[in-house]
Amino acid sequence: MELTKQLAEAVLSADPLQDERAIQMAKNGLLDVAAAALAAKEDEGIQKLMQLVEQEGGAAQIPVIGQGKKVSRQSAAMLNGYLIHALDYDDVHSDVRGHPSAVIVPALLSQLTECKGYGERFLAAYITGVEVMARLGESIGKAHYERGWHNTGTLGAIAAVCAIGYLKQVTREELTKAIGFAGAQSAGMRKQFGSDMKPLQAGLAAKTAVWSMDLACSGFGGSESVLDGELGFFSLYGDQELAEKRLLEGYGSIWRIVSPGLWFKVYPFCSAAHHAADAIEFLVKERPSLRDQIEQVDVIFPPGGDAALTERTPLTGEEGRFSVEYVIALAVFGHTLSLDAFTKKTISPEMRTWMKRVSRGYDQTIEPHPDAVPKGRFTILKLTLTDGTTISRRVDIPRGAPGHALSKEDIMQKLSSVIDASHAQQILQAIEAANDSSYLQLLA
Amino acid sequence: MELTKQLAEAVLSADPLQDERAIQMAKNGLLDVAAAALAAKEDEGIQKLMQLVEQEGGAAQIPVIGQGKKVSRQSAAMLNGYLIHALDYDDVHSDVRGHPSAVIVPALLSQLTECKGYGERFLAAYITGVEVMARLGESIGKAHYERGWHNTGTLGAIAAVCAIGYLKQVTREELTKAIGFAGAQSAGMRKQFGSDMKPLQAGLAAKTAVWSMDLACSGFGGSESVLDGELGFFSLYGDQELAEKRLLEGYGSIWRIVSPGLWFKVYPFCSAAHHAADAIEFLVKERPSLRDQIEQVDVIFPPGGDAALTERTPLTGEEGRFSVEYVIALAVFGHTLSLDAFTKKTISPEMRTWMKRVSRGYDQTIEPHPDAVPKGRFTILKLTLTDGTTISRRVDIPRGAPGHALSKEDIMQKLSSVIDASHAQQILQAIEAANDSSYLQLLA
Repeated sequence: MELTKQLAEAVLSADPLQDERAIQMAKNGLLDVAAAALAAKEDEGIQKLMQLVEQEGGAAQIPVIGQGKKVSRQSAAMLNGYLIHALDYDDVHSDVRGHPSAVIVPALLSQLTECKGYGERFLAAYITGVEVMARLGESIGKAHYERGWHNTGTLGAIAAVCAIGYLKQVTREELTKAIGFAGAQSAGMRKQFGSDMKPLQAGLAAKTAVWSMDLACSGFGGSESVLDGELGFFSLYGDQELAEKRLLEGYGSIWRIVSPGLWFKVYPFCSAAHHAADAIEFLVKERPSLRDQIEQVDVIFPPGGDAALTERTPLTGEEGRFSVEYVIALAVFGHTLSLDAFTKKTISPEMRTWMKRVSRGYDQTIEPHPDAVPKGRFTILKLTLTDGTTISRRVDIPRGAPGHALSKEDIMQKLSSVIDASHAQQILQAIEAANDSSYLQLLA
Repeated sequence: MELTKQLAEAVLSADPLQDERAIQMAKNGLLDVAAAALAAKEDEGIQKLMQLVEQEGGAAQIPVIGQGKKVSRQSAAMLNGYLIHALDYDDVHSDVRGHPSAVIVPALLSQLTECKGYGERFLAAYITGVEVMARLGESIGKAHYERGWHNTGTLGAIAAVCAIGYLKQVTREELTKAIGFAGAQSAGMRKQFGSDMKPLQAGLAAKTAVWSMDLACSGFGGSESVLDGELGFFSLYGDQELAEKRLLEGYGSIWRIVSPGLWFKVYPFCSAAHHAADAIEFLVKERPSLRDQIEQVDVIFPPGGDAALTERTPLTGEEGRFSVEYVIALAVFGHTLSLDAFTKKTISPEMRTWMKRVSRGYDQTIEPHPDAVPKGRFTILKLTLTDGTTISRRVDIPRGAPGHALSKEDIMQKLSSVIDASHAQQILQAIEAANDSSYLQLLA
């Protein structure tokens, strides 16, 4: 099978604009990207990256989100990808096991030189990128992530190059070669999780995509079979047999951006704590006086369900992004679970002491919900009160996840918590009008 | 074991300048790099890459070899790495199973901003880079290359970042993080062999090294344990257990640049045809009238020994780089095995007809020479003449390979075939004086 050529062919010959749900989901995705990236505009890492980019120099071609500056196309792809993923507040996708928009959207935005817009074609290209990234995620096999690869990085470049190829209507040969250039530069390690390098790996994949397509369109020589055979991409990074079955099966029949769909995050912290966050918020709302009554909190996961929640006694709000104890304490203390609770500010001693009442447990006898997100996951909160009564609540599909998705209004609320309401309205209008170049200018 | 920190520590605390043989070999290496890169200065690929780099813009910081132009530090690392490896005329190293200087030297040259030179420290940094790349090659295991990774690309970035770290005397923490950034961006596929992308993979590794060190020195956050443990670099790309045994064993006791040593190429074609080239050149020199007497040529390899020689009936000199048939025909027809025989020019019909007299065979019963280069390799040429007599010649260590190495004079001859003699002399003098910034200016 010639997977590389067939993928290029499938990408270029499909028409995502036939599916109205896909278009709507792409619009929601762009709105959520704006919220995630603008929430990070004061990030320290972006200042360091901007300085390094300025040292190298480069043409002022594409705006960096929220920075009021333009940099070269490749650098913009990198910096914007970093910003979208910096707070881990951007969408995730269960087939990808990673963050599709943080790679695909910045790679596409870097194509909008000289204010040239692509209109609805921009949305179609975004749908295409998510589609390819989801299919790559399924094709590469579970072992890929488990071994230590960071799927956002390793799958993002090929996916984004397909999105660019669709946007620019390149030839089949150009796309085939660009897939090859991107494949041969694909990287990203989970070892970098918890550091600034994690979100940068999203940006680097976006940059690789921009560069790989330029390389292909310049006529530079490259392989047209990088996804194929014994020495190919899937053999090296995953599972060739699985890829031959899954990569192209029914391409375009149901767009992956719709089903299983993007998960837009309600909270600016690790998605593994979102179930517990929903549960505690519900209980607190029901009983405002709960804080003074709680003696103990038990949080029950399936075995391994809290692997990403590495902090049990965080010192700062930033560390608290990976702590279910902190998230529960915030809600109990009456704070909203919003951005200002997850900064570098130190957590109060009072709250740190209270957090010791939270303990984690695991129960493999509990049957996960068939539609659980992620598959097989649940979280049960058991509160034991001072009077001896217990209250519990179980969450299988957290708010924001597919099956419990955010509406456009919810995402507008997320965006409006980050920028002023009239700016958010303008961004929404640009998206509704499929005016991609106006969207980019409004993010600048 | 904390391999990442220990590698940084070993690199920064060693002193390669204590070994005079290592210094001499590093000087030969720089001389050979000049020859390999300047031979490629008219290459078509470099024109395309220069155009793409100019589109992105960037500060004029470092010269591109033979192009009379300066580009940004990162772009220079990429373009110079490409040029050094473009004709496959640059050094190889058996521990690396790839091309160390094509990554390490351009990464180091990109540090020479504002004509600031490092003198002998530049040589020490180069020795360090080759050392780390050879150790990575041994530690990653044979299966790495066999599975399809391109060692020059996958091992080059970490090696070059160590070379830069030594050159700039960064802190241990900076080097540890830089190794992590480089490791998490390491890539390169053998699927790209035979295309322009192969030499570009060398350049991209050099660029990644420059960028990774800048990132580390800016204070950007990253993991300090990328080479360690179950999710680490060796687990992902190779063999963690092997790495723990081999990576640091006896670091600096015998420098790998000396033993097994760099192999400088005599001929501008695939090293797998060098044994046969030596054999036929010897036989032709002995009997100038041979051409009219040969009826048949049998070339005997160990099984798989000709795997890289993919062309049996090449149409052009460029394809002929991977054809033992063409190499033998050239010598028999009285041509020198030099650059002008390996261009895009079509091979004459007469020569193409003659090439049919050459056939390949394999013999696994023949014992390889204990010092064979590469290990286990040999080539036997058997000529059957029209009068029925047979002549044969066996080569185990081709000219240029360690054990049969080129002298400084030989490399000067290689360089002088590419540029005029006075220019070559100036380059030699800059190298002898350990004047790195003058060396760079002379390559411009």
